[in-house]
Amino acid sequence: MKENRIHNFNAGPAALPLPVLEEIRDSFLDLNNCGMSVTEISHRSKWFDDIINDAVVRTKRLLKLDDRFHVLFIQGGASMQFAMIPMNFLPDEKTADYINTGTWSTKAVKEVEIQGKKVNIAASSEDKSFSYIPKEFQFTKDAAYVHITSNNTIKGTEWASFPDTDGVPIISDMSSDFMSRPIDMDKFGMIYAGAQKNIGPAGVCMAIIREDMLEMVPDTLPSMLKYTTYSSKNSMYNTPPCFSIYVIQLVTKWLEETIGGLDKMEQLNKAKGDLLYGFIDSSDFYNATAERDSRSLMNVTFRLPDEDLEKKFIEEAVENGLGGLKGHRSVGGCRASTYNATGIESIEALVGFMKDFEQKNG
Amino acid sequence: MKENRIHNFNAGPAALPLPVLEEIRDSFLDLNNCGMSVTEISHRSKWFDDIINDAVVRTKRLLKLDDRFHVLFIQGGASMQFAMIPMNFLPDEKTADYINTGTWSTKAVKEVEIQGKKVNIAASSEDKSFSYIPKEFQFTKDAAYVHITSNNTIKGTEWASFPDTDGVPIISDMSSDFMSRPIDMDKFGMIYAGAQKNIGPAGVCMAIIREDMLEMVPDTLPSMLKYTTYSSKNSMYNTPPCFSIYVIQLVTKWLEETIGGLDKMEQLNKAKGDLLYGFIDSSDFYNATAERDSRSLMNVTFRLPDEDLEKKFIEEAVENGLGGLKGHRSVGGCRASTYNATGIESIEALVGFMKDFEQKNG
Repeated sequence: MKENRIHNFNAGPAALPLPVLEEIRDSFLDLNNCGMSVTEISHRSKWFDDIINDAVVRTKRLLKLDDRFHVLFIQGGASMQFAMIPMNFLPDEKTADYINTGTWSTKAVKEVEIQGKKVNIAASSEDKSFSYIPKEFQFTKDAAYVHITSNNTIKGTEWASFPDTDGVPIISDMSSDFMSRPIDMDKFGMIYAGAQKNIGPAGVCMAIIREDMLEMVPDTLPSMLKYTTYSSKNSMYNTPPCFSIYVIQLVTKWLEETIGGLDKMEQLNKAKGDLLYGFIDSSDFYNATAERDSRSLMNVTFRLPDEDLEKKFIEEAVENGLGGLKGHRSVGGCRASTYNATGIESIEALVGFMKDFEQKNG
Repeated sequence: MKENRIHNFNAGPAALPLPVLEEIRDSFLDLNNCGMSVTEISHRSKWFDDIINDAVVRTKRLLKLDDRFHVLFIQGGASMQFAMIPMNFLPDEKTADYINTGTWSTKAVKEVEIQGKKVNIAASSEDKSFSYIPKEFQFTKDAAYVHITSNNTIKGTEWASFPDTDGVPIISDMSSDFMSRPIDMDKFGMIYAGAQKNIGPAGVCMAIIREDMLEMVPDTLPSMLKYTTYSSKNSMYNTPPCFSIYVIQLVTKWLEETIGGLDKMEQLNKAKGDLLYGFIDSSDFYNATAERDSRSLMNVTFRLPDEDLEKKFIEEAVENGLGGLKGHRSVGGCRASTYNATGIESIEALVGFMKDFEQKNG
């Protein structure tokens, strides 16, 4: 932990890599000797072109995307995508399959219903309080798409592998595990991610969409709600969220040049998960809430023997420089979000504190 | 001009106050001793609550808003507002009046038409290439609202006073003159502004909406496209664009504490305009393109005797530390955007350069 910096276990907005933050700070008044802040340059300038193009190229390399995929930057977060996806990809006569694994997928379903379109819940883990990822699915024949949430921030579950949908494109909300591991894109028509967990600050959502999906987009949509508006203008039909895209560029650069790509990132995340889950499993004081085969490497949710101890745990953690360990307000308990930028040294500090706390209170 | 900083005449994203940029830089790794960057704190934290609430309170004080007005932060820029306004405020059976004064109002009209709703062009200055603000209007009786664009960034025109609409609420796109002068809010049902010209970086649009307007919002809209979603949750139904809102907070603080409010800001902007327009009017070499009574204090558009000279002018300006003087790609010519953060010393430097250039090339 660097002087004045805490170990940050926030669920999002969340920790960013320290070298990225330092680069932003050091060039904040004068980006690349242009005499302006990155917040003051025109989005039509050479400087910004370099930023957005580099962010796209690095994303394509990191995710091994072939030429069929468009990399887009859209405002409004994943919640705006919940509405745009059925607007763009779900014709009135068709059905979309949704797999319900928690709060966010429930909200995604709600936005289809608001539009009066047909949605089928192909599987749900609501019966056990969303503590697992389903393995059985009732897919609609010829569905427009299958929507999943690859990682569930609140319940601490994550898809280990993706379902076979017999050629129906999967659309996945990857907000909380985007770029935390390699992904085989063959099954996906679209993946999207609010930036504020793994790749940048709040204020931009990345959407990666396969070319053939764009042919389904109706002409009649409002310009800003139509994916083709973004794909045809390199996400610059109007002024994009320049600063957020700039940070994403720096984070993708960090992923490539400092970490060494998504295989390496996954190894590091697995090592972090082994350490933290390993300790929790060895203890009778702490209990992980997600089923073992559905555990998330991004959000480790756990409980203590009672709520008073949880409150004390979170308070004392803050006093010890460990922030963001409170569970989501809708479920309580504790949660350590361990995104890409949270290093193993933070997990070691957390486990050390947990041991100490158990000894004093167990 | 501070070392390494240019005189920034960008049309947007545009200059920000130097003390604001310095404060962002200095606290970028550790906001208010919380041990995190402003880009890493939770939007549900006390730290972010303080930021967004302060931005709202300062906005209300600066614009002298009474309790009827809600101050909202929405993603997608003014272009998203072009679509949301008719979705929220224009029932199918009613007509909206639009006054067409340039590129952006033309786009606003197009978004009403895309939705298949009724729009009446109550006035247009297209007959003279949008070089003036109309004075005669053909309003619809009982229109849902009258939409105007208070400042036209591309054509360099600005409304000096606002039309009498017989009680029909005016909705104004104020992206390019927001907080550049005091506004009598009595006529307005809503004003909105993409932040990236006068009050912050790209990535957030401020919308100020009168309470009674919100009663018109249909229940059936997608959550993220409904103004009541923002008004009922202090703009935090989902993760807001935290960094952009933080910069707005600092800019409104600068407007209040350093400038001394919008009356003072207007005086400064008028002094800048007097200096620049005064010089242009005294010269036969430079010609202002907007009609005199419609001139903008934010975007000063002018031509030189021919396009070769304009090209040379823009190039030599850059060499002299004066950036962003190229006119919009759709109209050519030159444009000096002189928003709040562009100080009189930048105008003096520009006028000095213009005199010099005229002497050598006139």
